[in-house]
Amino acid sequence: MPQLGLLHGRAWAVLFGQLRRPPGAVCIRAVHSHSQVAEAALATQMKPRQEKSNFIIKTPKGTRDLSPQQMVVREKILDMVVSCFKRHGAKGLDTPAFELKEMLTEKYGEDSGLIYDLKDQGGELLSLRYDLTVPFARYLAMNKVKKMKRYHVGKVWRRESPTIVQGRYREFCQCDFDIAGQFDPMIPDAECLKIMCEILSGLQLGDFLIKMSWKDVRHEMVAKKGLAAEVADRIGDYVQCHGGVSLVKQMFQDPRLSQNKQALEGLGDLKLLFEYLTLFGIAEKISFDLSLARGLDYYTGVIYEAVLLQTPAHAEEEPLNVGSVAAGGRYDGLVGMFDPKGHKVPCVGLSIGVERIFSIVEQRMKTFGEKIRTTETQVFVATPQNNFLQERLKLIAELWDAGIKAELMYKNNPKLLTQLHYCENMGIPLVVIIGEQELKEGVIKLRSVASREEVAITRENLVAEIQKRLSES
Amino acid sequence: MPQLGLLHGRAWAVLFGQLRRPPGAVCIRAVHSHSQVAEAALATQMKPRQEKSNFIIKTPKGTRDLSPQQMVVREKILDMVVSCFKRHGAKGLDTPAFELKEMLTEKYGEDSGLIYDLKDQGGELLSLRYDLTVPFARYLAMNKVKKMKRYHVGKVWRRESPTIVQGRYREFCQCDFDIAGQFDPMIPDAECLKIMCEILSGLQLGDFLIKMSWKDVRHEMVAKKGLAAEVADRIGDYVQCHGGVSLVKQMFQDPRLSQNKQALEGLGDLKLLFEYLTLFGIAEKISFDLSLARGLDYYTGVIYEAVLLQTPAHAEEEPLNVGSVAAGGRYDGLVGMFDPKGHKVPCVGLSIGVERIFSIVEQRMKTFGEKIRTTETQVFVATPQNNFLQERLKLIAELWDAGIKAELMYKNNPKLLTQLHYCENMGIPLVVIIGEQELKEGVIKLRSVASREEVAITRENLVAEIQKRLSES
Repeated sequence: MPQLGLLHGRAWAVLFGQLRRPPGAVCIRAVHSHSQVAEAALATQMKPRQEKSNFIIKTPKGTRDLSPQQMVVREKILDMVVSCFKRHGAKGLDTPAFELKEMLTEKYGEDSGLIYDLKDQGGELLSLRYDLTVPFARYLAMNKVKKMKRYHVGKVWRRESPTIVQGRYREFCQCDFDIAGQFDPMIPDAECLKIMCEILSGLQLGDFLIKMSWKDVRHEMVAKKGLAAEVADRIGDYVQCHGGVSLVKQMFQDPRLSQNKQALEGLGDLKLLFEYLTLFGIAEKISFDLSLARGLDYYTGVIYEAVLLQTPAHAEEEPLNVGSVAAGGRYDGLVGMFDPKGHKVPCVGLSIGVERIFSIVEQRMKTFGEKIRTTETQVFVATPQNNFLQERLKLIAELWDAGIKAELMYKNNPKLLTQLHYCENMGIPLVVIIGEQELKEGVIKLRSVASREEVAITRENLVAEIQKRLSES
Repeated sequence: MPQLGLLHGRAWAVLFGQLRRPPGAVCIRAVHSHSQVAEAALATQMKPRQEKSNFIIKTPKGTRDLSPQQMVVREKILDMVVSCFKRHGAKGLDTPAFELKEMLTEKYGEDSGLIYDLKDQGGELLSLRYDLTVPFARYLAMNKVKKMKRYHVGKVWRRESPTIVQGRYREFCQCDFDIAGQFDPMIPDAECLKIMCEILSGLQLGDFLIKMSWKDVRHEMVAKKGLAAEVADRIGDYVQCHGGVSLVKQMFQDPRLSQNKQALEGLGDLKLLFEYLTLFGIAEKISFDLSLARGLDYYTGVIYEAVLLQTPAHAEEEPLNVGSVAAGGRYDGLVGMFDPKGHKVPCVGLSIGVERIFSIVEQRMKTFGEKIRTTETQVFVATPQNNFLQERLKLIAELWDAGIKAELMYKNNPKLLTQLHYCENMGIPLVVIIGEQELKEGVIKLRSVASREEVAITRENLVAEIQKRLSES
């Protein structure tokens, strides 16, 4: 089974360790009352707005903000996905959020109506990108790049009816990996499937299966391979069959196919692909399934889609219908559509549906009442005494300058108990305490929030001691 | 001087180490010829387009793609900025690329004409976000959040005349840090200035200065502090003066001001702020300068702007006029504009102009002909023999599954020399070589690209040996 790299695997384990905390654990987002300082009487610079109470404050339909908790989950997931792309030698690339409208024309077939256009405010006609694939093809053609392995993480926009429960939005994030270039057959295709498996295994979302097909099989067989329509229809008999290596063998043994030279050739790619998938140790994860829907308009060869199998990991967990979580395929004609001379650059790639993966993880967190830290603060600078703001500011600057993540209360005279509660609620592991006594003795008190143990440390040794403790934990 | 955390400081050092390579170093983006495999005769699914040769393939005006090399630089810079934000206890947040048009109305004054609107395709009227501050204020009001320290890295869009040489684009990235909430005066403001200093020092862009002022000083003094207009005008006399602590002292000693109770109060905040800046060790980086322009419409108090001082780090370097690289200020009224009852949440924040910082680093790279790695590949799987694709695929899957970043050629029979050249050009440090001989002996040859030394390693020990070498390097 593919595993993610050590570092990221560990980061994930830490995240899930946090997710598994007992439901009784304190909520980390609790807001504490600070003493209310009289707000300066600000002369309002705005006109009074009578209509103010009428408007509803919301995000546009099909979009949402991501809260700090959602951002932490998202960051962990994206880190793992990107780390897998980099493990396979991909370079990063970014393209603008919008393209010239004509760049997107004729690329998406009947889905084109879902493209967001920008208002004509003078100048060029623009549209928000609908996926990351067409901008990639435009980039290759524009820069005459004939070979490139790239990843791209970014938002795309589609004017769909949002069914938010399934994690479908009008604005959503895509994580794409693509291989452009003319290579020996089926090697890059097999690597894309391998990457899908590595990511889905690494994310520990439960069991999954990748359904593979050919874009418009009959058309492929007849137009591309020159197969007689009646032989192609025989291949169609296998549409109802799902299977891997054994199905391919079965098709080879079928005399209706094996006695036809072109049909044999047509099956050759399939056999080669399964051979590579076997070498990659993922053949049992892939099911050849001609009933798979056609996918996007620009696909020209192998297409695939990964679905999660609906066995909830825990008995008490509500099953969640998430359907497809990754998809991709070969698109050998797209770059040529941008090239003035129609020069083609064959491409194959995949897209991870991270929004759905976020939904699953969020659902899981909700079910278990799980909490995660939304800050990375390591040390809190506290005082038990009044009039110690100056000393606290001097001390925290020393910590920041040493690269230590530190916070304090923006208050002249905070209560010690309030400060310590804040640390417990936020999951901050260490507190440094400075007061009259410590100042006189030239020491700082270092307190472990978990054990509540306190030790006095000389000021010169404080940073080193904190770094030592943090590296041990 | 503030320094970035060890990890990120080191990452930066590595980046700059790479940047400083001698100009003679091989270009890493060279494209190698693979044997040309006859392209499958694809029946083109597209209609022939007569107009094809007429259209120009480009990105929209004022936007650009980011190449893999630019992405590497960008990622390092963003990592450092975000790591500083996290060091100060900030939580992450994300908002949609577009907002309801009415959310942006009346927030930007005369700049509102630069907002990109979306086409009315039925449904809500939408606009692309113009900055990250207004969406943050909308988020606070919408969720009734009264206190929050958050960072946000994201793209914003402005229909400005692009003057690309200065790093100004119509689509650009902003890195924002803001503190919302009612706190004791000037503490969060001082922390924002501290963060600016840490980031600009950490990025090693040369010397810099932060110019600080008050939004519309006279209005502040007269309307907010209840100061007589004639006393306010006396403060105006100091508009031509620039300075830090000493200027504040001078103003306090001026009898025209010190004999007026309200003027003294008005100067109190300034004195307090400089006291905190001194404790943070950054007072000498801040210049009080009432001539500073007003900034965005929503600012209500302290405003500040960081400028790079034009002393090129190296004599042979072309001076580049980059102007402001960071800015921010206090906006106590913005959240209230979204709240139905006008409830205010005081805020102060800053925005790092990372696009300009990218320009500077890119300019520096160009000047020195610097090269950087665009992939992180650690090991290349090679063979000296024909018909070894299967063994290579099996081997590379083992490496991927162990979390090792590995590549191979998508070719049945590549030449060994081509494979080794690829590693040198791409900066891949290790090559594993498998051939007839190795297979027979149950070993793999491990080659260091730099030293060209090769050792035979048993297959079971290969992953461990690679990990050992990578951890040492």
